[in-house]
Amino acid sequence: MVVGGGFGGLQVVRKLRRAAVDVTLVDRQNFHLFQPLVYQVATGALAAAEVAAPLRAVLKRQANVRVMLAEVTGFDLERQQVVLDHLPNGGSGKTLGYDMLVVAGGSRYSYFGHDDWRERAPELKSLAGALDIRNRILTAFEAAEVESDDELRRSWLTFVVVGGGPTGVEMAGQIAELARETLRRDFRGVDTRGTRVLLVETADRILTAFPPLLSHRAERALEKLGVTPLVGHTVVDIGPVSVAIRSADGELENVAARTVIWAAGVAASPLASALASADGSQVDRAGRLTVTADLTLPDRPEVFAIGDMVRVAQSDGTIAALPGLAPVAMQEGRYVARVIRDRLRGRATEPFRYVDKGNLATIGRSKAVADVKGIRISGFPAWVTWLVVHLFYLIGFQNRVLVVTRWAFSFVTRGRGARLITDTGAQAD
Amino acid sequence: MVVGGGFGGLQVVRKLRRAAVDVTLVDRQNFHLFQPLVYQVATGALAAAEVAAPLRAVLKRQANVRVMLAEVTGFDLERQQVVLDHLPNGGSGKTLGYDMLVVAGGSRYSYFGHDDWRERAPELKSLAGALDIRNRILTAFEAAEVESDDELRRSWLTFVVVGGGPTGVEMAGQIAELARETLRRDFRGVDTRGTRVLLVETADRILTAFPPLLSHRAERALEKLGVTPLVGHTVVDIGPVSVAIRSADGELENVAARTVIWAAGVAASPLASALASADGSQVDRAGRLTVTADLTLPDRPEVFAIGDMVRVAQSDGTIAALPGLAPVAMQEGRYVARVIRDRLRGRATEPFRYVDKGNLATIGRSKAVADVKGIRISGFPAWVTWLVVHLFYLIGFQNRVLVVTRWAFSFVTRGRGARLITDTGAQAD
Repeated sequence: MVVGGGFGGLQVVRKLRRAAVDVTLVDRQNFHLFQPLVYQVATGALAAAEVAAPLRAVLKRQANVRVMLAEVTGFDLERQQVVLDHLPNGGSGKTLGYDMLVVAGGSRYSYFGHDDWRERAPELKSLAGALDIRNRILTAFEAAEVESDDELRRSWLTFVVVGGGPTGVEMAGQIAELARETLRRDFRGVDTRGTRVLLVETADRILTAFPPLLSHRAERALEKLGVTPLVGHTVVDIGPVSVAIRSADGELENVAARTVIWAAGVAASPLASALASADGSQVDRAGRLTVTADLTLPDRPEVFAIGDMVRVAQSDGTIAALPGLAPVAMQEGRYVARVIRDRLRGRATEPFRYVDKGNLATIGRSKAVADVKGIRISGFPAWVTWLVVHLFYLIGFQNRVLVVTRWAFSFVTRGRGARLITDTGAQAD
Repeated sequence: MVVGGGFGGLQVVRKLRRAAVDVTLVDRQNFHLFQPLVYQVATGALAAAEVAAPLRAVLKRQANVRVMLAEVTGFDLERQQVVLDHLPNGGSGKTLGYDMLVVAGGSRYSYFGHDDWRERAPELKSLAGALDIRNRILTAFEAAEVESDDELRRSWLTFVVVGGGPTGVEMAGQIAELARETLRRDFRGVDTRGTRVLLVETADRILTAFPPLLSHRAERALEKLGVTPLVGHTVVDIGPVSVAIRSADGELENVAARTVIWAAGVAASPLASALASADGSQVDRAGRLTVTADLTLPDRPEVFAIGDMVRVAQSDGTIAALPGLAPVAMQEGRYVARVIRDRLRGRATEPFRYVDKGNLATIGRSKAVADVKGIRISGFPAWVTWLVVHLFYLIGFQNRVLVVTRWAFSFVTRGRGARLITDTGAQAD
């Protein structure tokens, strides 16, 4: 049984297609989400359906797989059972047995203990979060258009993105482009080019996974787009109409901003702690489980856990937290499928080794930074690399064609076609 | 000022682009909805953004237009003002003056006084309704997959579509195709080809706007797809897990069905009665306002009302309720723009005359019926006509390309790419 149809889980399932096993894939959503492009849904550059592929459609031709829509809420590792809730027919508390279990629950953003901020600052990881953010961003411009008070109008045109990782950087760049290019001629009462986009990062540079040189290039590229990167700054409070930001030297500023987007901190899926407590083990501060070098629980060779909800204990005794990237999860997923196939043939498998293929982040239309095995590129060549890599990994040939079409239109017209506010409260006639 | 950015309102605005007037377009949604294809969103054949075009993007190049996102809730015809609520900045009760007013609020489905049915049987007219229906249909198949009780499983696989007009017919055909073709290999525990789709129509035939010959051809085509047309049947109650249907000879049957879709009855937008009461006049049983032959209110040449929220009093004294179709609203919109332009030049305009260009309804992949000026066609040629006409009127070149791409994929693979359940209650990791 595989729990979670993200990058890791889906690889396990697909690489078992020729193995003599029956696979049950359990996910609480009926689609695989291509998370690296979710931020483009948040600005209306892509439609939700274009970055998501129905799991059943993806696995249609794989006869040894059964997909179940349900939420896993507990594990009984002795009896080799999982507990399923939120079944689509209204059922709950159903138990399902397994011979081998792979848990790939992923992670979510952490609000650093301020869960009350969640409502004011939606996260940019789930599709629901992205659609919420899209509604808020587009409504903010609409509000600015009808607002007669200058100060209030400025607060509608101020956007705060929290977190200077790839997602935060991409999001901030997209909002700036939306305001300066896409919407430039859309409004009559307001000049959207006056929009402020603040990107708040606690570390002393953005994109800390990249070499400092590329971080600084990315910062300059963002500034050119109209984003203000506030490195060494920390969000200390999010009020109903403002955000309190503290600089590195302790100065506190209250920024009047109506729209706040959260892309900081990482917390493992609750499945990690559920699995740990079923096993009698502990999770780390980020809620991650520790697995052995073959990605199983200690003394439970039949239970695998992969992706950014785990840390891997190396054979030399050190514990590695691999970056929370799709390639890591996919390599781990492929590895687990290989272990399972090897076991069926009575073979042993080498411990898991992550092969770092590099890091990519895009900044705006035709700018990106890439760090591939020490080769550092930025600007247009990096952007083309980003484009090709993302299209290659996007699941579903149809989605590739649709996304290329939208991107081609956006590149030429600087427009964004999927700019719908779907949450107007009113029912449409 | 134009109220409503549907087919009628948008035509008024566009045809005034070279007139020496300032136009304000008020809509409570930020997009124009291409309603004839909304039913395809409900089965995941198209993504929401592909049948909707942001109003600001559509009107970007028209310098004399200002778009406002707000809900019109009242009219003061003496002072020539409208009252706006639900402003995007949270404001309400704002008044806005006009020299000329065009109200194009459209219509909604009527539940014949049973508004409590609305929750059980969402309507297929708004985008929100279509997304709700998509979630319900896809969840029903998921529920059938995990359901162990035969009778309950059957109730999850029974779909009732209420209303045998073009939308109901198209929807019923789409569900049958979804079950018999798209999902055929997606499930392991259930044979989706056993799905029952009941199309309930009170009249003695479906598609009553068409000649009887085409109605009967459409009924046979539906049956071939796996739809059971229940003509002469009326839905008398919708319970939590069943629907009570009465046949023409009074027999009552309780059908166990979990998914009910509403596409029957028409009620004018509440804007019609708001306008009538501001004018001291009355609306008819369907909530429609009566306008004169030049589409204005009697003795108020500066107030126009168009689309399926009005009936038109002919110069011979009769009152015509034109069909609630996009071409009618568009012709009326173009007419109003011409009247306004003529008035600016001091010219009179002939009374409005509707030119009937025919009727089209599609039944499934590659089947349709068409009645064009007495020429009756059905089957593949009618379907090609339907395809060309719908693509031609779909707004936005980008949407045309995206829709053609999706349709081409669906035609070849019988798949549906946008099959997301976005309302699983759970937050995605």
